[in-house]
Formats: sequence, C-alpha cells, structure tokens
Amino acid sequence: MIYLDNAATTKPDENCLKLAEKYLYTDFYNPSALYAEGYGVQLALKEARKNILKTIADCERFDLIFTSCGTEADNHALFCGGKRGNVITTEGEHSAVISCVNELKQRGIEVRFARLNGDGSVNFEHLLSLVDEKTSLVSVIHVGNETGAINDILKISAAIKSKNKYTLFHSDGVQAFGKIPFRMSENIDLYSVSAHKIGGIKGCGALFKRKNLVLKPHVYGGGQENGYRSGTENIFGIKNFEFAAHRKYSEIKENFDKVKKLSDTMWERLDKSLFVRISGENCSPYILTVGASGVRGETIMHDANDLGLIVGNGSACASNEKKRYSRTILACGVNESLADGILRLSFSFENTIEEVVAAAEILNKAVKYRKDMMA
Amino acid sequence: MIYLDNAATTKPDENCLKLAEKYLYTDFYNPSALYAEGYGVQLALKEARKNILKTIADCERFDLIFTSCGTEADNHALFCGGKRGNVITTEGEHSAVISCVNELKQRGIEVRFARLNGDGSVNFEHLLSLVDEKTSLVSVIHVGNETGAINDILKISAAIKSKNKYTLFHSDGVQAFGKIPFRMSENIDLYSVSAHKIGGIKGCGALFKRKNLVLKPHVYGGGQENGYRSGTENIFGIKNFEFAAHRKYSEIKENFDKVKKLSDTMWERLDKSLFVRISGENCSPYILTVGASGVRGETIMHDANDLGLIVGNGSACASNEKKRYSRTILACGVNESLADGILRLSFSFENTIEEVVAAAEILNKAVKYRKDMMA
Repeated sequence: MIYLDNAATTKPDENCLKLAEKYLYTDFYNPSALYAEGYGVQLALKEARKNILKTIADCERFDLIFTSCGTEADNHALFCGGKRGNVITTEGEHSAVISCVNELKQRGIEVRFARLNGDGSVNFEHLLSLVDEKTSLVSVIHVGNETGAINDILKISAAIKSKNKYTLFHSDGVQAFGKIPFRMSENIDLYSVSAHKIGGIKGCGALFKRKNLVLKPHVYGGGQENGYRSGTENIFGIKNFEFAAHRKYSEIKENFDKVKKLSDTMWERLDKSLFVRISGENCSPYILTVGASGVRGETIMHDANDLGLIVGNGSACASNEKKRYSRTILACGVNESLADGILRLSFSFENTIEEVVAAAEILNKAVKYRKDMMA
Repeated sequence: MIYLDNAATTKPDENCLKLAEKYLYTDFYNPSALYAEGYGVQLALKEARKNILKTIADCERFDLIFTSCGTEADNHALFCGGKRGNVITTEGEHSAVISCVNELKQRGIEVRFARLNGDGSVNFEHLLSLVDEKTSLVSVIHVGNETGAINDILKISAAIKSKNKYTLFHSDGVQAFGKIPFRMSENIDLYSVSAHKIGGIKGCGALFKRKNLVLKPHVYGGGQENGYRSGTENIFGIKNFEFAAHRKYSEIKENFDKVKKLSDTMWERLDKSLFVRISGENCSPYILTVGASGVRGETIMHDANDLGLIVGNGSACASNEKKRYSRTILACGVNESLADGILRLSFSFENTIEEVVAAAEILNKAVKYRKDMMA
C-alpha cells in the first residue's frame, strides 16, 4: 500500500519510538514528583522543551507550552488572544481555527475573514485592510492544510504590528513545522505545532509563545507547564516529539528537496486531460492538491484505495463536518464541479519516486475509468 | 527500588503496551480519514469507547468523551457544568477541581466548599445543606487523592438530585476507576477518569457523560469525539487505556483484596510511636496516608529514596503550588506539625508483601534517624 496522506498523519518514526521507549518502561515517573526519579523526568521534559524551542525560535525570547495536539494549541491561542473587539482570520484555515472563531462570534466578538488568492494563500492587501484599532488577534495559517499554500507570516505579522502594535499574531504551523525552513520573529506571538504530522505520535503538540506574553491558562489544575496547561505531562509523547523534531530539523533541507522532486514527479505524471492543479507553483512540496472535474474525489479516493494507494480528499479533520465542498477550496475560486473532485496528495521524505510514479498511474487509471463509465 | 507512589502514576502495563503497539507501527492512520484504513482505526476507537464505557456504566445511558488526561476531563465538567448560580465542591478535591472552581469564582460564580470528616471524606450533611435552588453543579471526588477516603457518590448524588433535580453532579473518579468496585447511576452526570493511574500511559483520560446531557465542547475544531473534544484522536493511548481498563476490571476484586493486604501490612509494620494514620479505616486500600509528627514529609521522602523506596508526600500535582501544607490534610483537622510530616503510600497490585515489609522498615528507620538527630 502506497501512503500519500501524510498531511492527515504520518507513520510514527520507528527510530524515535525506540529512543522514547524508556519513558514508558523505566522512566515512567510523574515529572511533578519531588524524589530523584521524578526530578529526572522533569529534567528530560525541560530538555525536550529547549530542544523543540530552538528548532525555530530563540530560547531567550520564546517559551513553549506542551499541549495534547495542534488543535488544542490553536484553541489556547484563539480563546486567550481573541477576547475583545474583532478577530481576523482567513478563508484558508484548518477547522481548529475556524471552529474557534465561530465560537468567538457566539461570544460577541466580531470575526473578519481575509480572502484567498487562487493558490490558497491569503490576499495580503485584503488581510491588512481588515486590521484596525480594535483588532485583538489575527490568525493566519502558515502552510494551508488543504492547498499547501505558504503564507509569508514574517511579512504578514510585521505589517499587522506596524498597523496595530497591540494586535496579537497567531499562526497554525502544523503543516509547516519540520518541513518548511523558517524561524520565528518577535512579531509572531503564538505558533501551533503538532507531533504526529512529523513522525511523532498522536496526542502531543505545542504552542510557541513569545516569552513576555501572558495568557490565561487553557487547562486549570496542578500548575504544570508553568500553570498554562495542567495535567500530568505526557512524557513519552513529548520526548518522542523532541526526537522527531530533531530528526526533521537536521534533515530539513534534504527532505524539502527530496519531497519537491516527489511532488514535481507526481504532477508531471498525472494526465493533464484529467487533472487540474489547485496547489500553486510555490506551495509546500509536502502537499499537492489536484482536482478531477466531473468525478467525485471521494469515489476516486476509494477506487485508488482498492488499487493500493492511500490519498486524502481534503482535510481528514473536516470529514466530521460532512460538508460536500471544502470552504477553502471554494475560497480559492474553484467551481463546484471541480471542488467535488478534489484529491490531496501529501508526501513524506520516506516516500520514493517509484511509489509516486505508481501512484500517478493509479490515479490516472481511476479517473479515466470513472469518466469512461459515466460517458 | 520499591515504588509506592502509584497514585501519582503507575508503571505502564507492559502487556497492554504490547497489545496497543500496532496502533503505532501499522494502524497509525487518522481515524477521521475516509479510506478503509482510516475507517478501521475509527472502528477500533469505537470499540475502545464501548469497552471502557461498559466497565462502570450502562452503554445505553452513558457516553464517553476521550480527553488528554483526567485534569482535562475535570475542566470540561466544571466549566461546562458551572455556568450560573453557585457551584459546590469539597475541601478534599484534587487541584484539577480546586483550580477550576477558583477560576469560576473569578468569573462571578459563587463557590461553596463542603467540610471534610476527619478521615478525608466529605461531611454529607454539610454538603447537602449547601445545595439550594441556584446550585448548578456539585463536584465531589470519588476517592480522595491525598487520603484515599471513599465518598459514597451514589448516595450523595441521589440526595442532591432530590433536593434540586436541575443540579449537575460530577465526580473526579481518577483514584477510583479500575480500583474500587462501582457502577454509575443516572444521578451522576459526569465522571472523570485517567489512564496512567491504572497501568495505561500518560496523555489519555476520559469523561463519562450521561447520554442526554448536552455540554459545550471543550476543544473546538474538526468535530472529533462527537464535537465535544476536537483534535486527532490519540489512538495508541486510547487502545492502551482500553486494554488497561479491561485488565483492571477483570481482576478488580482480587486486586482489591491483594492491595488491602498490602496496605494492612504496611500499617501493621509501621512504628506507631512514630506514625499517625491519617487515612480512615474504610479508605481505598490503594492509598495509605500517614503523618510523622515533628519531621518534614519531604525530608523523609528523600531519605527513603536514598534507602531504596519511592513514596509521595502528598499529591504530585500539588507540588507545583509550592505550598507547605496540603489544604486537604488541614481540612481533615490535622494540626500543622503533623501536616508537615505527611507521607502518601500508594500501592499497585504488582507490589508484593516483601516490598511492603521492607518499605515499612525503611520508613521506620528514616523517621527514627531524623528524630534522634534532632533530639
């Protein structure tokens, strides 16, 4: 089975699992326990925090709150940042952000949506025009989970801060972290990441936070995570995340180039009479979204599955919403017929050119078969 | 090293880790993905939900929301249940509940605390006297995490409901689940549990919920967990929890009896001229809290650690608060000198009589040595 749905979740890296195993079998102590063994786990936790922080941020200027997932990190940022006035986000966000702003709206906050360009990136001018003196928070996804579009959040956050220096800037970096070379600037107050998108396990994420920014806690209790996120720390998941992040950042350039070749090969091999490219030329190579007009993406996904290929048809997280069309894809200006036939092909550095070539053949075959059948 | 801090966290059950391993190595798919492999994981999740539910509840009448820990489950219950009027809890709660009610107070909710009896159980009459027509929520810990006191939550919840049928009843069941034979009644609306206290891993918990009770979501996003708790499901942690709960419930009576013998032996062997028993006679056998007057519990904990024994000196989760005295212990009527010398000995079915005998000797020796030194 060829697995090309790595944006939904990655296969956990076996090497990182092995490295973290001792936190299941021997160093299982509660990090808050005051005896030597607990303190040892506390030190291991501290080390994980520092090592994950330094992958993309200056440890002197940023902190990191371990969370149970990227969605939780987004919730913490959105509900603590979006307390008054208006909140701005984009039409191309993950449902973790969209659902939060919908709830903020219920709580009386004005929510403004910035339009997307055709490639799924946010329209910079429109976004900036929405910022005013009452904007408490702007949240812009770093790499679009459905299109792979890369938003230049360094430029965007700087422009927002020069328009209103009191506006907080958050970015959902779940599809960027460990994949797109990038370093935090102080204009980015909050940045969400997830372990299971980079070879870590599910149940672990983090929220990067500018050090002198004070938030309300997200989970109240024993005061873990500097009081921001109580609950016994998931030390196995956190150490595993540390190892996965370390591996990804030590190979980030090679992996990027390798995955770019995979993505380029995929697009070369797809039959252009059947597929339209949705992802822009400068999108993240880890995500290639295409549309096959006149067929349903879900059908092709199942056909491909029968032929030995796993691909997504949009965000897995959106599947619970049971909506026919993706709001992000429509916001890119894609018509409904094409929006019906969306497939998201997402790569890992572990995929091979051979897999991609075989996958393209399967997809060409599946779409051609459906179209012939319906002709 | 003898480990008697099982109330802080248990060593993960190796057998359950092995059983769940396939959700790391092969069945790692996103449960929300619509292809066959994702659906397979979705089914495994459904099975885990049913199997954990049925350990203590009627599946027709209760639901279960998987959370990232017991603390999160408590937060969900407290913040969704305590929306108006007054909220009642006890002086013997875990910091997960105490911190939530403190925050509720900040939000304008009146918080009332029921007094404890000398053994750490809640004073039933006082608790009931606090309930009135404006009480939106009552939260009573099932087994006190510091004293092991068992509250009769079936009786308590029934009495509350007959006084005010609109009052929600929640219980933190973290130290009871898998240990104390018990089944949910419909008077209990919400019940929090945690995996890592019963041989599961950290990063996984659950909130039992009466089926026709509608709550606000705790984490907003892709709509996982019936919309109550979004975020990609921690399938490894959840399946591991299922296996740990299954094992604990299939051996619950034997384990209870075995651990009762361990606890009784410990108390028998402790030098009564040095130690005072804080836990009542009818407390959970899994927790035995004792006090050594005139010495500091933390010092004895470190001395015992040097001699090969791990014990706690109160709740690990309270260690972040850096308070000298435990509020629960003081609420039991213990004086400050004794409250300073508290040790919590907490057992697992995996502990042996030999370990307990050796541990009692270590504790006697450590306290005697300190007292002699200071004499």
